[in-house]
Amino acid sequence: MLDAGVAAAERRGLKVSIAVVDGGGYLVGLLKMDGAPLLSPDIAQGKAVASAVFNAPSLDLSKRWAPGSPIPTAVSARLGGRFVPHQGALPIRDGDAAIGAVGVSGAASDQDEAVAADAIAARPVAA
Amino acid sequence: MLDAGVAAAERRGLKVSIAVVDGGGYLVGLLKMDGAPLLSPDIAQGKAVASAVFNAPSLDLSKRWAPGSPIPTAVSARLGGRFVPHQGALPIRDGDAAIGAVGVSGAASDQDEAVAADAIAARPVAA
Amino acid sequence: MLDAGVAAAERRGLKVSIAVVDGGGYLVGLLKMDGAPLLSPDIAQGKAVASAVFNAPSLDLSKRWAPGSPIPTAVSARLGGRFVPHQGALPIRDGDAAIGAVGVSGAASDQDEAVAADAIAARPVAA
Amino acid sequence: MLDAGVAAAERRGLKVSIAVVDGGGYLVGLLKMDGAPLLSPDIAQGKAVASAVFNAPSLDLSKRWAPGSPIPTAVSARLGGRFVPHQGALPIRDGDAAIGAVGVSGAASDQDEAVAADAIAARPVAA
Repeated sequence: MLDAGVAAAERRGLKVSIAVVDGGGYLVGLLKMDGAPLLSPDIAQGKAVASAVFNAPSLDLSKRWAPGSPIPTAVSARLGGRFVPHQGALPIRDGDAAIGAVGVSGAASDQDEAVAADAIAARPVAA
Repeated sequence: MLDAGVAAAERRGLKVSIAVVDGGGYLVGLLKMDGAPLLSPDIAQGKAVASAVFNAPSLDLSKRWAPGSPIPTAVSARLGGRFVPHQGALPIRDGDAAIGAVGVSGAASDQDEAVAADAIAARPVAA
Repeated sequence: MLDAGVAAAERRGLKVSIAVVDGGGYLVGLLKMDGAPLLSPDIAQGKAVASAVFNAPSLDLSKRWAPGSPIPTAVSARLGGRFVPHQGALPIRDGDAAIGAVGVSGAASDQDEAVAADAIAARPVAA
Repeated sequence: MLDAGVAAAERRGLKVSIAVVDGGGYLVGLLKMDGAPLLSPDIAQGKAVASAVFNAPSLDLSKRWAPGSPIPTAVSARLGGRFVPHQGALPIRDGDAAIGAVGVSGAASDQDEAVAADAIAARPVAA
């Protein structure tokens, strides 16, 4: 999936970081493309964690809580700051369950999400 | 650069703190002028870190994220609170890459930035 | 380097995680092999950070401080817990300077280090 | 004092970082010499904070608490991790009161302390 994500980003002329986490938000793989921002790996990881643990596109999470809600603050504290509920990550699903997520950072957030979608689409069916 | 920054602040009648960090945001040098606010060294450091790790004037960063965006919160957590995306810091560049930054705090933020610019202008060419 | 590290681990029959960081300890790439322990990515990252920021094999760091020294505790706090001064990581050097590090976790720590060495040996000369 | 500390380190052939804090442990000035370790500024700051807030040489603090004592842990938490009770810092005194401290890191800890002593000795009498 990382290779597919990098290929998708290159086709679009983007320089991004791509993170893959499991269903519990634990890191499984990460790649920072040359020229992607220094902290884009951390932001990509945070988006992927958000998507995995809530089983939702991170775009949905950016709209879920009212401004000032204590919930994202508490979740971020629980996850050691590795929580970025902002567009750019999509869950990897087996049926309805999230078994992981892909998060992307470094480009406009809708482009980040498009790269995540392409990375997930490349997942082998049998996996 | 610290001496040049102090001289520039004195010419303007300002009492500020000036921080220099490397390209990864690690502190390299810092001076608090007599009479500068107690926490101005920490704020100057935070501005410099922000400018270095995003390779941008910290003024630009103050406009980059919508109010309530989770990204600056997550970045601040990642950097142990050493992240102040607010006018007053400028990157030190080698070509296009940020090899460090100078951050200033203690005066109005546009004056802080002017001091940072003077400090960077004093950098030896051969360095 | 990640691919070389995975190949080296497979040759030895090991299931590990491999992290690559830059000279400031920022994550650049990471892979967790199937079957490697859940937190091995985080431990690999922490070893790599330790090796990069101190420009030393992490084995050396495990012997540097007396038991109870406050220095590793303070460094860990400064780095947000991403600091594991334990065998399994080696610096990537350009001349004498550390420009990054590779950290490995999941096997015995001397085997982890051997995988890191193989990953670094695969680095293209021109890079 | 920073300049005097750097001169003292150069006379000894050392590459260190030197931090000056006020009586409350707030940073006033810091210099990292070329070639000093990446995190030596943070460690120097932590030593200086320890010396200032306890009004004692940091060497004394390294012996003050029994192994496993919860006090240094609690103090470190209170000070955001900026607390390194380890040889290399000396208080700056006005009479018996600590009005600040100088902390040094990067060499052997007794050499660090010698540099701190030289830096403090250079303080203008009228200050």
